[in-house]
Amino acid sequence: MRLRNKPWAKDKLAEHSNIVIHNPEQYKGQWNKYFGNDYPIYIEVGTGKGRFVTEMAKQYPDVNFIGVELQPSVIVGALDLILEEQPPNVRLLNQNAEDLPHFFDKGEVSRVYLNFSDPWPKNRHEKRRLTYESFLAVFQSILQEKGEIHFKTDNQGLFEYSLHSFSKYGMILNNVSLDLHNSDFESNVMTEYEEKFSNKGNRIYRCEAAFQS
Amino acid sequence: MRLRNKPWAKDKLAEHSNIVIHNPEQYKGQWNKYFGNDYPIYIEVGTGKGRFVTEMAKQYPDVNFIGVELQPSVIVGALDLILEEQPPNVRLLNQNAEDLPHFFDKGEVSRVYLNFSDPWPKNRHEKRRLTYESFLAVFQSILQEKGEIHFKTDNQGLFEYSLHSFSKYGMILNNVSLDLHNSDFESNVMTEYEEKFSNKGNRIYRCEAAFQS
Repeated sequence: MRLRNKPWAKDKLAEHSNIVIHNPEQYKGQWNKYFGNDYPIYIEVGTGKGRFVTEMAKQYPDVNFIGVELQPSVIVGALDLILEEQPPNVRLLNQNAEDLPHFFDKGEVSRVYLNFSDPWPKNRHEKRRLTYESFLAVFQSILQEKGEIHFKTDNQGLFEYSLHSFSKYGMILNNVSLDLHNSDFESNVMTEYEEKFSNKGNRIYRCEAAFQS
Repeated sequence: MRLRNKPWAKDKLAEHSNIVIHNPEQYKGQWNKYFGNDYPIYIEVGTGKGRFVTEMAKQYPDVNFIGVELQPSVIVGALDLILEEQPPNVRLLNQNAEDLPHFFDKGEVSRVYLNFSDPWPKNRHEKRRLTYESFLAVFQSILQEKGEIHFKTDNQGLFEYSLHSFSKYGMILNNVSLDLHNSDFESNVMTEYEEKFSNKGNRIYRCEAAFQS
């Protein structure tokens, strides 16, 4: 995503600490207590402008959603959307994906969503892809037993790579779709990016990858 | 593939027992002795009219190829092609895939090719697909340690299913291509079917699935 610099973004994020959780370390192992319910927690890593996580929160009121996004000038868009839509069950973390084990205990997260992650197409950048084995280890370390990553992208190379990486990690691929918008998967919630690129005729690829422990 | 009945096919296959191996049980554990060399043995299951296996045999003279095809009226086309092209390193088996363990010892086969296998799209026919777990067990039982299935198809549903089935079996997916003819995979040998359907604009999907034992 192209970034516009928004020097005011950090201040705005700081002002809304009821939605953008600061010092999430303090809630490690305590998220259900924080939310005040025992609903499962689903996180989206790379939540961008937050349309997916906000729509999902509205559709699934019995799930707690947390959007994780590193870029302040992007996540501020997600904050605006949540302020507008007011779903009670969504929060944001302006954090790095690799730090997630500092914020969540093993088993505290029930599902991870990766939507249109940066493809990092050059081989030498493989380790930056969110489906690289080191990130899979991060996600496994916070997910429940046999937890799943729900992954979609329009980037053919990233999807091909990720099928390899998931299987190499011993994960099972379920509900693979090589053309999501022409499939019978009915509950799809589109991201901003997805709508734009699908309208251009790009195929959307999707799968659910399940850890085996 | 649509079948034309060829009542003379069986007789013709019987006449060419130097190419179409009858009673392959007798060579179990003895295939390298039969071929008179220590080259690896690659088999294609569902070899159809034999263009792939014949071309591969010509390109890779240091590999022994065996095409397996159940339909006499189809495999007779492969026989004709081999009689015409005369590659010394290819044989045919007019046999059922599930009987392969009767013909090969564990480790005797170095690679399995599945090209444009019947997709059996109905759920109730899942067990007939050559990438169903019972067939994977058959292939594993004759393949070398960490042997591979090289699989390609233009059938999106079969490919999606097979990614699931391979990963569920614990196999690693390598060199996945979701658009083979627009990829950098250069050594592709086309089947008759592949040429026809690719010319219609269909995408060809391909992957290599490696057993872990």
